[in-house]
Amino acid sequence: MPEHFADRLMDAIAAKNSRVCVGIDPVYERLPAHLLSNGWYDANSIANDVRRFCTPLMTAVAEAAVAVKFNSAFFEALGPAGPDLLQDLLGAALSLDLLVLTDAKRGDVGSTAQLYARAVFADYVPFPMRHPDAVTVNPYTGSDGVVPFVELAQEVGGGVFVLVRTSNPSAREIQDLDAGGKPVYRHVAELVRGWGEGHQGASGYSSVGAVVGATWPEQLVELRAAMPHTPFLVPGYGAQGGAAGDVAAAFDENGLGAIVNSSRGIIYAYAEDDRYSAERFDLAAADAAERMRREINQALGA
Amino acid sequence: MPEHFADRLMDAIAAKNSRVCVGIDPVYERLPAHLLSNGWYDANSIANDVRRFCTPLMTAVAEAAVAVKFNSAFFEALGPAGPDLLQDLLGAALSLDLLVLTDAKRGDVGSTAQLYARAVFADYVPFPMRHPDAVTVNPYTGSDGVVPFVELAQEVGGGVFVLVRTSNPSAREIQDLDAGGKPVYRHVAELVRGWGEGHQGASGYSSVGAVVGATWPEQLVELRAAMPHTPFLVPGYGAQGGAAGDVAAAFDENGLGAIVNSSRGIIYAYAEDDRYSAERFDLAAADAAERMRREINQALGA
Repeated sequence: MPEHFADRLMDAIAAKNSRVCVGIDPVYERLPAHLLSNGWYDANSIANDVRRFCTPLMTAVAEAAVAVKFNSAFFEALGPAGPDLLQDLLGAALSLDLLVLTDAKRGDVGSTAQLYARAVFADYVPFPMRHPDAVTVNPYTGSDGVVPFVELAQEVGGGVFVLVRTSNPSAREIQDLDAGGKPVYRHVAELVRGWGEGHQGASGYSSVGAVVGATWPEQLVELRAAMPHTPFLVPGYGAQGGAAGDVAAAFDENGLGAIVNSSRGIIYAYAEDDRYSAERFDLAAADAAERMRREINQALGA
Repeated sequence: MPEHFADRLMDAIAAKNSRVCVGIDPVYERLPAHLLSNGWYDANSIANDVRRFCTPLMTAVAEAAVAVKFNSAFFEALGPAGPDLLQDLLGAALSLDLLVLTDAKRGDVGSTAQLYARAVFADYVPFPMRHPDAVTVNPYTGSDGVVPFVELAQEVGGGVFVLVRTSNPSAREIQDLDAGGKPVYRHVAELVRGWGEGHQGASGYSSVGAVVGATWPEQLVELRAAMPHTPFLVPGYGAQGGAAGDVAAAFDENGLGAIVNSSRGIIYAYAEDDRYSAERFDLAAADAAERMRREINQALGA
């Protein structure tokens, strides 16, 4: 595998002809009933129940997806056993040859951002552990909060996706404020482009990417043009309302340069379709991921 | 103790005549040598070494400080045992009658922000645990990312401090962009004011606060006037450059309405002053916290 994150990502997209990232975002209350322990709970039994949901899911989607994305919130919300579980699942995903993103959206002042970067890339002293290929970062504190991630990513062959335009309805409140004739998110896009300079791989893409929501197709067009060397992570597909036609603009003329994430629409697919029993949630997820792969490819003619 | 976060905070400020918050931000490599285990390391021994630093520190500053602030990054960077350690220290701080802030700076789309809120307020299913009095939140995703914190805080009698103007040099890159004649952080201040409406306690202050850096005194003046019912958390005192005269503007005419945080300047005070041995890092911290308490009170005439 290439050492450069963007090269690994573009190679994986081409090899699998897939632009699908599956968000492994388990909510305990939504687990299929047969996975729950017999009414006896502690932190570890909860983590084990969640593990019995996530592991088959990842195995099931490994063919249709290029990447999985773990949103840290879902593991932190499981309580004390959450972080260990996340670390285990991350190892399992890497062993399935999936690219792994940790969606942590961290951001802080410089010295603290450095520690967050060490935490997400598992650069623990003195026992470094397996780490994700890339992480998401919040840009509100500016360069101080982002550059430590970019630098550590560079060292470990990782990537950083900076929030530019998020997929949620209230994203507009700050991100769309007009600042000197262009919205705040365009200023952030310019910062992201700058942070990524000098970090391009053989693919032409930088290890510094951008998060741009699938729910705002016209902004995908605009931002793809403004950031030609920036890989995009496009959340909001499926449950949040983004469709295949909407996300096509995230890609370059070779069908590269982006991955599209769906979480609930894939991992809970069994609950939306009578053809699947809860016991075969993994099969439902595999089919949903494969359907998403084809839908996006059709929209791209890929 | 009053049920409303802002009332608890203002009562504690008045009772102790202190506006000091101590940031418990342990970096393993900076622990005094006598606390380190004998060259034998695993995740738990590291956590124990850090515990032997933090527990005496909190006991030592409990008289001069009204609150301690745990920055989540410092515990996440310790590896797998970090979150448990944070939970233990949080309990110890509450037992010392200190108000406790978790500085997590989380922010995400709505459904995910809800999970982050549950995680920081330890609202785990089915075993809720002790939780901090308040948390910090990043506003970049807008209301969707903040309101779930405000709502859960309301339920548990907690508070939320939203980043408005951070203390780091590059804060200006996004926060100071001019949007329609006023900087982005002023727009955020208006959002914060709105999120706090209907959440005021008997003190007149809301449970929704703002983070405004001590390194920007003129902005403290401006924002205090713009947000009269918003409690301020003022970071950046000491090591980051803020001084007592700079932070006075954060307070109302009764010397209430804000707390000022110092981390490195207090917890590593022993290293900056020959009068203290490394073994008495706790005494050095107690003296530094008391000095900070008096400096701020003098600047306020309190």
